Amino acid sequence: MTKSDVKYIQSLAHKKQREEEGLFVVEGVKMVDELLLNFPDRIVRIFAIETWINDRTEIVKKYNSINCIDLQFLERVSFLQTPNEVLALVSMPTIELIPSFSNGLTLVLDQIQDPGNLGTIIRTADWFGVKQIICSVDTSDAFSPKVVQASMGSLMRLSIFYLELDSVLKNLGEVPIYTAELNGESLFDLEFRQPFVLVIGNESRGVSEKISKLATKKITIPKLGNAESLNASVAAGIILSHASR
Amino acid sequence: MTKSDVKYIQSLAHKKQREEEGLFVVEGVKMVDELLLNFPDRIVRIFAIETWINDRTEIVKKYNSINCIDLQFLERVSFLQTPNEVLALVSMPTIELIPSFSNGLTLVLDQIQDPGNLGTIIRTADWFGVKQIICSVDTSDAFSPKVVQASMGSLMRLSIFYLELDSVLKNLGEVPIYTAELNGESLFDLEFRQPFVLVIGNESRGVSEKISKLATKKITIPKLGNAESLNASVAAGIILSHASR
Repeated sequence: MTKSDVKYIQSLAHKKQREEEGLFVVEGVKMVDELLLNFPDRIVRIFAIETWINDRTEIVKKYNSINCIDLQFLERVSFLQTPNEVLALVSMPTIELIPSFSNGLTLVLDQIQDPGNLGTIIRTADWFGVKQIICSVDTSDAFSPKVVQASMGSLMRLSIFYLELDSVLKNLGEVPIYTAELNGESLFDLEFRQPFVLVIGNESRGVSEKISKLATKKITIPKLGNAESLNASVAAGIILSHASR
Repeated sequence: MTKSDVKYIQSLAHKKQREEEGLFVVEGVKMVDELLLNFPDRIVRIFAIETWINDRTEIVKKYNSINCIDLQFLERVSFLQTPNEVLALVSMPTIELIPSFSNGLTLVLDQIQDPGNLGTIIRTADWFGVKQIICSVDTSDAFSPKVVQASMGSLMRLSIFYLELDSVLKNLGEVPIYTAELNGESLFDLEFRQPFVLVIGNESRGVSEKISKLATKKITIPKLGNAESLNASVAAGIILSHASR
């Protein structure tokens, strides 16, 4: 591993650089093992300590680009607080040019700003079989290191678009748009029928006004206690679970 | 504000010190305003910048112990990345000596280690009207700064116990114990009838074996997609929402 490798990996902290290179960083034993199992062709380069490599001699034979590094190097390039044996450079998924709304459930994220929340939402969406997520252009970037770690592999299975939400949502024809809000109809009274679009809003401000206006129906998770709000990823999980019941 | 004030506030980062003093730290405009509105008697001392105090002259009249500080001091004592105008020392809620299981729903947390997850679970439990949470002794401390910020006020409304889970759960008599696991009965097929106990397990290892053995029923959130697991707070929210349907 050279100085220029260090600089190169560090540069992938920036969205512009990730897009230019078509690469993002995946870290840690668990995550890289999942990649090796499910998406081996996506791995472009691996940097790992000796013990990690020795434990996987069969698997890693296939890769020309494995770099054995020491822990000190890993610590220099890692985005984790506690670097964990291995780091991989992974090619970004290629997605369709235009999302399709005619099947299934599309999750729309309106200004989700916390990377941990975004990663958790991606993982939750993958649990419930969601295939595409449309993010507002001011939602956190899905391939930034914190989102990648929180999404735990699910990132690879979904198509994630960044688009101007109002122009997209204005052109859905018959497909209903449900927005998660504090003053809507009870989630428990709703019968979901696919295709539909579910909009989850910003962590503190909720769904923005111009998007809320486009809603076919506003839906609310009934509150029995006193909390002021629910975390965005918890709200997404609850609604997705009821929609898939 | 004196040097000893700074040291004193910093010392409340430690659980032992919080318990000795019976105090914890709440920060930020939104959280302290909620306290002033709902739990004014719990506030022992306020440290705020001038503009915060000037905007609340009527409310703050009642308090003898408001200290006007500058931003620099706030930055020195704050546990937040971006300190926000005000910090309050708040007395810990006094709770019953022994939890009661004969009514409602008791949430049990088995080794929840991430403070953000714990805070989010507390907030979610409060949304669904849960009144008591039993934490294993190795669950993160509910009054640590990160949990307090993530729980957003809900911490004040619930009784939170730290106990040896297996000895508690062994003595519940007729009250059913449901554990959230990956290989249980579908959540969607269950009819919840209170009182009952719901156990949420560790972020990566799930419910521990000795607790799982005590389950009346293991329950699973049906998976339609491919994610390996759900975040602990998302899982808690989903099960609580179905239990309150």
